[in-house]
Amino acid sequence: MTENVLLRNVLSEFVGTFLLCFIGLCNVAQFHLGRGVFTVWIGVNIGWGFAIMFAVMATARFSGGHLNPAVSLLLWSLGHLKLGYVFLYSIAQVAGAFVASLAMYGYYYEAFQAYDGGVRAVLGATGSAGCFASYPNPYLGFWGPYVDQIVGTAVLAYFLCVVIDERNQIPKVWHPMIFGFLIMMIGTAFGMNMGYPINPARDFGPRLFSFFVYGAGVFQEPYTGYWLAPIVAPLLGSLVGGWLYQFSLGMHNPEIEEERAQQEKLLA
Amino acid sequence: MTENVLLRNVLSEFVGTFLLCFIGLCNVAQFHLGRGVFTVWIGVNIGWGFAIMFAVMATARFSGGHLNPAVSLLLWSLGHLKLGYVFLYSIAQVAGAFVASLAMYGYYYEAFQAYDGGVRAVLGATGSAGCFASYPNPYLGFWGPYVDQIVGTAVLAYFLCVVIDERNQIPKVWHPMIFGFLIMMIGTAFGMNMGYPINPARDFGPRLFSFFVYGAGVFQEPYTGYWLAPIVAPLLGSLVGGWLYQFSLGMHNPEIEEERAQQEKLLA
Amino acid sequence: MTENVLLRNVLSEFVGTFLLCFIGLCNVAQFHLGRGVFTVWIGVNIGWGFAIMFAVMATARFSGGHLNPAVSLLLWSLGHLKLGYVFLYSIAQVAGAFVASLAMYGYYYEAFQAYDGGVRAVLGATGSAGCFASYPNPYLGFWGPYVDQIVGTAVLAYFLCVVIDERNQIPKVWHPMIFGFLIMMIGTAFGMNMGYPINPARDFGPRLFSFFVYGAGVFQEPYTGYWLAPIVAPLLGSLVGGWLYQFSLGMHNPEIEEERAQQEKLLA
Amino acid sequence: MTENVLLRNVLSEFVGTFLLCFIGLCNVAQFHLGRGVFTVWIGVNIGWGFAIMFAVMATARFSGGHLNPAVSLLLWSLGHLKLGYVFLYSIAQVAGAFVASLAMYGYYYEAFQAYDGGVRAVLGATGSAGCFASYPNPYLGFWGPYVDQIVGTAVLAYFLCVVIDERNQIPKVWHPMIFGFLIMMIGTAFGMNMGYPINPARDFGPRLFSFFVYGAGVFQEPYTGYWLAPIVAPLLGSLVGGWLYQFSLGMHNPEIEEERAQQEKLLA
Repeated sequence: MTENVLLRNVLSEFVGTFLLCFIGLCNVAQFHLGRGVFTVWIGVNIGWGFAIMFAVMATARFSGGHLNPAVSLLLWSLGHLKLGYVFLYSIAQVAGAFVASLAMYGYYYEAFQAYDGGVRAVLGATGSAGCFASYPNPYLGFWGPYVDQIVGTAVLAYFLCVVIDERNQIPKVWHPMIFGFLIMMIGTAFGMNMGYPINPARDFGPRLFSFFVYGAGVFQEPYTGYWLAPIVAPLLGSLVGGWLYQFSLGMHNPEIEEERAQQEKLLA
Repeated sequence: MTENVLLRNVLSEFVGTFLLCFIGLCNVAQFHLGRGVFTVWIGVNIGWGFAIMFAVMATARFSGGHLNPAVSLLLWSLGHLKLGYVFLYSIAQVAGAFVASLAMYGYYYEAFQAYDGGVRAVLGATGSAGCFASYPNPYLGFWGPYVDQIVGTAVLAYFLCVVIDERNQIPKVWHPMIFGFLIMMIGTAFGMNMGYPINPARDFGPRLFSFFVYGAGVFQEPYTGYWLAPIVAPLLGSLVGGWLYQFSLGMHNPEIEEERAQQEKLLA
Repeated sequence: MTENVLLRNVLSEFVGTFLLCFIGLCNVAQFHLGRGVFTVWIGVNIGWGFAIMFAVMATARFSGGHLNPAVSLLLWSLGHLKLGYVFLYSIAQVAGAFVASLAMYGYYYEAFQAYDGGVRAVLGATGSAGCFASYPNPYLGFWGPYVDQIVGTAVLAYFLCVVIDERNQIPKVWHPMIFGFLIMMIGTAFGMNMGYPINPARDFGPRLFSFFVYGAGVFQEPYTGYWLAPIVAPLLGSLVGGWLYQFSLGMHNPEIEEERAQQEKLLA
Repeated sequence: MTENVLLRNVLSEFVGTFLLCFIGLCNVAQFHLGRGVFTVWIGVNIGWGFAIMFAVMATARFSGGHLNPAVSLLLWSLGHLKLGYVFLYSIAQVAGAFVASLAMYGYYYEAFQAYDGGVRAVLGATGSAGCFASYPNPYLGFWGPYVDQIVGTAVLAYFLCVVIDERNQIPKVWHPMIFGFLIMMIGTAFGMNMGYPINPARDFGPRLFSFFVYGAGVFQEPYTGYWLAPIVAPLLGSLVGGWLYQFSLGMHNPEIEEERAQQEKLLA
């Protein structure tokens, strides 16, 4: 047994993000490479949701199963994690997502070959780089991806705070499933602009891997610098959403013993 | 911490309805503006269901998470809320839905531009006002929307009363998920006529906001006065459904200790 | 409060079957009349599943929520219900389904008018009687519907016995949701031949009502006597499935205290 | 009551695999023979998932509900089952799947006749052998199916170990539902290459049955020897996935009493 708790937690973030991204990326590949025959959009949403559920279930007892630098950063800002660990966890998360991309590419290699005849293109009719990282819908301008990811990750962070606020009395056994449903919900509502990465590791790790497959285009298309948006914006959005919870509801949330008495005053 | 319980509850209704409608409206926009590529109808049903689940989960400990004037009115009629609070809650709910519309419009602004080239129309081939408020299916006559909303909201209210009836022994931790499943069910069965607003705040708040985008058409199409139906009818339907529960089942529901003995008499 | 337990239970079967069939029939009408735009098949499966979940949840504390003569008959055969009550419950169930058909027809009347221009036909391009009762896929011969309904109802009855067998230790709060999932499963696997009525009340009640709308054709198409199959076969299938459980698993199911010791013998 | 525990467990594996495969195969047949009208891919995923949930629920108290030789083998390798029993269970599982194929063929016989006019073909425009066993997507080479099944079954085995690891404190009442969600997830992510048999009994039992319907082609198409892949690879993949869990997480998983203290060290 690994006695070093920190090492164990870093390992768990690596493993958990690998599991999450391997399953999630295969899900996206099945949608993209299958040209809509094998999955409809709600299938992608459900698949990613269960991927979160199971990856969190596997790692919750170790590191808590953040699996997302934006989540680790939020938990630091809430006083649940040392800042140094945020960096370590983030590195482990990106590494897990990188290895997951390799695994997905190996697993679906023949499907990629069948899809584009062996000539990889980032975008366009035979483009398949969207199986790895996000690319914005053409209607989005420069700031669109920032807005999108701040909002999407804020929704994630807001409800994450709802679930882990112990005064809300949501039993721990429910947490992985609830996080899965949360990701399903985000996919049905906030997926059209650019997919819903809402996780710097999930986007950057696979993009870095795809550089070795597609070349520099993955950092240049649809415009140079796009790739920064799904890294920077989720980190910001997570803080926005998490603290929005604290200000809008969390700081007013009554202690458990107070609640009943107070609500009774409202009855006629 | 906000010591004033009433203020806290009003805040919670504002916040909860904002969350519900922001997520739900983005879901509808993804369906409508995506022209069916990004979502199928069951995806809309699932997304709205989870939006209810999470918005109720976030606010249940405060105000109970009504998020709907029709629900607040019903709870008054059952003796669980003072009438004055129904008005306060309703104002907060409409305000939350109004702000949610603004947020959705900002979030999907570029998708709107791509959809109609920048020329907003209420209905028709490039019409998009249906992303905000409900518009009836053309086959409906004047009273159709009233019937539709009375029925849809009655189903909501009926099962809401089943769930909160303590003799039915449904643990509180299940309530948000059950309400989510309830909305999914209503969407699969009662959505064709006019979508399923079944919530005056969810319909009127966004319609009011859309007035500033689309102009007076949102109150005039498809005919003047339509917009009143999804306000008036849910209030009536909620009372109908809630009291139908009381008369059909609730008033006959045995106390917990009585039940076992009574059922045993039926055995051979 | 109704002190007479029998009367209360009969009422509950009437109300529960009304709720189940009203929601379920509206679901089917949305699929059928919407010509596939408003629902896909999995949406029908999910909607019926939740309809079962909520109708059982509402009535479980009264009569147990059979909502199906085939279930009541099975429970009689297992010694949980007097035979006379099976008849009373069945009448209440058929009556509930009949009234539900009236309610659905009123609710979607304008959609029916738009669908067929006001000329009701049982089958064919503008046929809509399938919104009420089942009609077999044309490839089925005379005995096909019997086989189909015996199998489908046997699956229902088999797992119903799994769930209510107390040695399986499935908490009562899970039962309604599990029954909902069960119906979703049956719809995904056993729906192609003729829909999956698997409930004499759900089929006969609405068929009887549709006689007043469509005329005698509902009892004559696609051939005279078809309508008996979804009445007779589920009653038989329920007994087959329920007793198959008893013979295949139930009678070998160890008491709770015995189990642990016995399983330990198998370990190396 | 069957006092012989081993016999009872073997019976339970036979019955459980029959239930799983009968429901699952009917689900696949509905998708395949219905030519996409009656089900979309997510419907297949959901249906198989619930089939696992209910088949495990029915048999969990007996043999634990393996229903898959790859799972039995894994549990042997973890020290939970004697090797001799793995063979006995596997024979029972294959037999259950064989009988399930017969039952499915009988149930949907008329649908098969309508689909191909009575002339059975393994593959091609009127081919229907895919209703019984898996056939690889044409883009797969010789080793593709091995990779696919090792990976798919490893995912199954990995999370199975997460769920049954008692230190993860997942209550037994949740297990069948979680296994159902797990299969849904695998279907959304790992289904495109060849369906997702991930179970030697589920593939070989029906393939053997289909030999009597389609002839030797079921063991020769698309190439001789293909049929071995979904037998051999899941057995290997299950061991890979199960031990990957032990090495990556399981052996580092802290005892319950240790955990709280250790995590507290990480807080600032």
